[in-house]
Amino acid sequence: MTSEHRSDAGPLPGETADPALTSALAAAHRAADAARPAILSLFRAEGLAADNKAGPGAFDPVTEADRAAEAAIREVLASERPADGVLGEEAAATASSSGLTWVVDPIDGTRAFLVGAPTWGVLIGLNDGTRPVLGVMDQPWTRERFWGDGAAAWHARDGEAPRRLRARAPVPLCEARLCSTFPEVGTEAERAAFEQVRDRVRLTRYGLDCTGYALVAAGGVDLVVEAGLQAYDIQALIPIIEGAGGVVTTWDGGDPQQGGRILAAANPQIHAEALAILNA
Amino acid sequence: MTSEHRSDAGPLPGETADPALTSALAAAHRAADAARPAILSLFRAEGLAADNKAGPGAFDPVTEADRAAEAAIREVLASERPADGVLGEEAAATASSSGLTWVVDPIDGTRAFLVGAPTWGVLIGLNDGTRPVLGVMDQPWTRERFWGDGAAAWHARDGEAPRRLRARAPVPLCEARLCSTFPEVGTEAERAAFEQVRDRVRLTRYGLDCTGYALVAAGGVDLVVEAGLQAYDIQALIPIIEGAGGVVTTWDGGDPQQGGRILAAANPQIHAEALAILNA
Repeated sequence: MTSEHRSDAGPLPGETADPALTSALAAAHRAADAARPAILSLFRAEGLAADNKAGPGAFDPVTEADRAAEAAIREVLASERPADGVLGEEAAATASSSGLTWVVDPIDGTRAFLVGAPTWGVLIGLNDGTRPVLGVMDQPWTRERFWGDGAAAWHARDGEAPRRLRARAPVPLCEARLCSTFPEVGTEAERAAFEQVRDRVRLTRYGLDCTGYALVAAGGVDLVVEAGLQAYDIQALIPIIEGAGGVVTTWDGGDPQQGGRILAAANPQIHAEALAILNA
Repeated sequence: MTSEHRSDAGPLPGETADPALTSALAAAHRAADAARPAILSLFRAEGLAADNKAGPGAFDPVTEADRAAEAAIREVLASERPADGVLGEEAAATASSSGLTWVVDPIDGTRAFLVGAPTWGVLIGLNDGTRPVLGVMDQPWTRERFWGDGAAAWHARDGEAPRRLRARAPVPLCEARLCSTFPEVGTEAERAAFEQVRDRVRLTRYGLDCTGYALVAAGGVDLVVEAGLQAYDIQALIPIIEGAGGVVTTWDGGDPQQGGRILAAANPQIHAEALAILNA
C-alpha cells in the first residue's frame, strides 16, 4: 500500500492521526471491553438500587453499575497507561505525569440505565492538556462502539468490520433533526433559547443521552443542544464528532471541553445557523 | 412433569394460555423474524428517505423500511394464517374469516428509526374480535423480543434462553419511573393532566416509543402516559404488559384497544394512583 493510497483511504480504524496515540486508543478499547461485563451483569437486574448523589429535592442517580464500570476501566488504564491521569465521574482523580489525562463517565445516562433503555453509554476520552484528542463511546447492550481522534471516526458492532463515520451533509434547518436529553434543558433562559431552535427544525427527539451525540457522528442527527453538562459528559464525544466532520462548541461558540451549554452539529453550516439562533 | 409442577412453573415460552393460539404465536415469531432483515438493511442507511404521510404543517414519516417490514410480515401471515385478517399501518386491511385479526405496526417509532436510535420496535398483535390476545414487540438492532398472551410474558435476546417478564412491584408514586414519547403529549388539557403525574414521580424519560411499554413489562418502568395513539400502536403491547402483571387502560379506565389516551402501569396499585391524578 503506497502512502498516496493510504492518504486517500484515510487511517485504518486502529490508527490515530498522531501515531503516538495509537497505543492509547488500543488501551481505550480494552478499557471499554472491560466495562462491558461489569455493566451488563447489572443492566435490567432486579432490585438494582440507585443512590442519590444530589441533595434533597434533586435526583442524581448512581448505581453499583457506575461504580463497577469505572473500577474496571481504571484497572485497565492503571495497568496499561500508568503515567496518565484519570478524571472519572465516580472516584477521585489521579494525577498525570505524562501530560495525558483520561476523562471517564462509566455510564452516561444513568436514568436510561435504570429504566432499561439502551440509550446510555460508556464514555472514555483522552485529553492532552489542551483538548480531547481521543474518544470512545461504547454501548454494551447493542454491542456497538463509536470512536474517533478528531481526524477520523469509526463505528463497529461486535463481529462486524468497522466503518468510517460521516456526519450528515448540510440540510436546511427546517429539515434538521435535533436531540436533547431533557426538554427542560436548563434554566428558563436556556430553555427559551433551545425552544427557538426546536421550533425551527423538522424533528426533535429527547432522552438519548450520549447516543444523541454519537448519532451526530453517524449521520442520523443534525444538532444536539443541551445545557448543564460536565466535562466527563462531553470530552469523549468531541473527537468522535469532529472526526466525522461535525463541530462541537459551547452556545457562545467557545471551547466545549469543560461542558456547560453544548451545541454539537453535523457540519459547520448548520452549526452556524443554530449558534445564531441560540444567541439571537 | 406433573400438571401441578407445570401450573407452578407457568407456561413455557412458546405456549399460550389458550392452546388454540400456540400456532398463532409461532407464526407471529416467524413474521417478526422475517421483518428483521427487511428493516436492518435500511436502519441507519445513508439517504433513507422519509415521505410525509401528514398534510402540510404536520410530519408523519414513513420510510421504505416501514413498507418493506409490513410486506415481509404480511407475507408470512398470508402463508401461515390465511383465514386471519390483517390490520396494518401501511397497507389496506384484509378481512378475517377466522374471527382473528392481526394488528401490525411494522415500525413503531419511525422518528427514532430516522435518527438511528434503537427505541423503535416491530409490533405484531392478534385480536380475537373482543380483545388483543397475543402480542410480540421485536427490536431487530438490539436483537431482543418481548411477547405475551395476557397470562404470561417473555423476553429473549438472540442466542439466549427466554426469561419470564414480571412488571415492577408497587412503589410509592414519588419513587416511580414514568415514560412518554413526546413531552407535548397531546392537547393542552392532556398535557396538563400528564404534567400532574410527571410532577409527582421520581424520574421521567421521553422518546422511548414502544420500548417504554416493553420496559413496563420488563420491570424497569412503572408508568407510561400518552395520548393520540392508534390501535396498532398499542394492541400488541397489551398482552405483553398484562402477561407480566401490569395494567393497560385509557385515561378514564376503559378498554385501551382502540388507542387514544393510554395509561400503562406496572401493577394495579400504581395504575389506580395515576388514574386518580389524570382524572382529578
